[in-house]
Amino acid sequence: MRDLAGSLRWLSLNTATVREQWDLRQAVEGCVRHDIPGIAPWRDGVQALGPAKAGALLREHGLTVTGLCRAGMFPAADATGRQAAIDDNFRAIDEAAAIGAQCLVLLGGGLPQGSKDLVDARSQFRDGLAAVMPHARAAGVPLAIEPLHPMYALERACINTLAQANDLIDELGSDDPILGVAVDAYHVHWDPDLAAQIARSGPRILGFHVCDWLAPTRDMLLDRGMMGDGLIDLPHLRGLVEATGYDGLIEVEIFSKDDWWRRDPDDVLRIVAERYRTVV
Amino acid sequence: MRDLAGSLRWLSLNTATVREQWDLRQAVEGCVRHDIPGIAPWRDGVQALGPAKAGALLREHGLTVTGLCRAGMFPAADATGRQAAIDDNFRAIDEAAAIGAQCLVLLGGGLPQGSKDLVDARSQFRDGLAAVMPHARAAGVPLAIEPLHPMYALERACINTLAQANDLIDELGSDDPILGVAVDAYHVHWDPDLAAQIARSGPRILGFHVCDWLAPTRDMLLDRGMMGDGLIDLPHLRGLVEATGYDGLIEVEIFSKDDWWRRDPDDVLRIVAERYRTVV
Repeated sequence: MRDLAGSLRWLSLNTATVREQWDLRQAVEGCVRHDIPGIAPWRDGVQALGPAKAGALLREHGLTVTGLCRAGMFPAADATGRQAAIDDNFRAIDEAAAIGAQCLVLLGGGLPQGSKDLVDARSQFRDGLAAVMPHARAAGVPLAIEPLHPMYALERACINTLAQANDLIDELGSDDPILGVAVDAYHVHWDPDLAAQIARSGPRILGFHVCDWLAPTRDMLLDRGMMGDGLIDLPHLRGLVEATGYDGLIEVEIFSKDDWWRRDPDDVLRIVAERYRTVV
Repeated sequence: MRDLAGSLRWLSLNTATVREQWDLRQAVEGCVRHDIPGIAPWRDGVQALGPAKAGALLREHGLTVTGLCRAGMFPAADATGRQAAIDDNFRAIDEAAAIGAQCLVLLGGGLPQGSKDLVDARSQFRDGLAAVMPHARAAGVPLAIEPLHPMYALERACINTLAQANDLIDELGSDDPILGVAVDAYHVHWDPDLAAQIARSGPRILGFHVCDWLAPTRDMLLDRGMMGDGLIDLPHLRGLVEATGYDGLIEVEIFSKDDWWRRDPDDVLRIVAERYRTVV
């Protein structure tokens, strides 16, 4: 395993971690100030500046863009809605290309309004993914399917396990480097099949995200913990990921409305760096 | 599929559904009043009366006891704790025998204090299960492994999928009818492998539990919904279960601190019966 204690060279900040405090420009400057070499912006921040200007900003500061959050979410109630989702993914791919992102993160999307059919939603995700792959290939933007925790399956993300993501990639083009996965500790730590599915993912792993699972968790969406404050065995998970040969950055992504989003963002980045060195 | 609209004969009330309003005796009388032929008590209710008296009460009222909740939870921080869990399971098996329960429901248990090792917790569950099987066999009490939703993996239940439960049963004695599974809609609805794992479970299915997943869910433990009020496709799930030949009762188990636990329990049972007929 890599020696994180000795260097911040593999650290990336997902801007969601300080989204209530900083806009994209401030987050970029914060990363530079704290010697954090990577960043993963969200689309609203990129769109606020404009993709070209955002890309220039990121390049000027020499940051590695580990991913753009987020697109996917293909299931919809009718053909118009499905086409709108595909069009939005085209725009997201263009934005990711403009900022030089290593990948575009895709979420499953929830049940369409009025539906309880998760099997159909998953099939719609597959169809949407197939529809946007040519555009991603042309733009040179790898698509990282990020399984989200099963507690989001119905409302937000019908792709919930690495097995699902790997099966999809096998089906749609297993040797095509345009498709990959993002492994997020918060979403996959519980999986009894984790070791096997990470090994199976191998070179498909385009991103590795960390935070922690708080006990108790007070909000299903916005109460994630800082690494070390919860119950996830992060070194174990990192070991599995790095055993596949993964040498990319480690992205810190913390949604925390009552804690980290209320703190001085420079304190947040200082603690992110410290925990990266000591508990990841 | 069975015609639920025409008959309550396959309905069972898990007493957790009215646990803030009624003790076991009141729940038994409530079931009789509402023509609900089955009941699944919790151990605290059985222990309050004493297992022999509770058994007599249930028999006198002619109720089918679809299960006793709950035991399992084998992982512990040291050998003393592990033995205490095993001893508690012995008592639970005796209680289940005394009340004529069709099965004893086993949960995984969470991480032991100070541990983040989910792989080890799962291995401890397997060892504990193996240790109590002879006692269950002697008492004639089938053990129903109930996978709980992955959001409980770390704190409460390290067995989270039917695949895990089926793998365990394969390992410990696949032809031994002393081991089975409980399929709870709340816990398994999200599983991409659901259809295959229910089919694989087949005659191992000892219990089928229903409620609903509310959107949004305000509390991870105590905000379950009445059938029909949420997003789970219950008829689809019941179809999968009944396709295996399952002809047991359907148990309604709703933890709902701010809604159903605050209502008149006779209203709760009336609505349970109505929803059983119309949306399950």
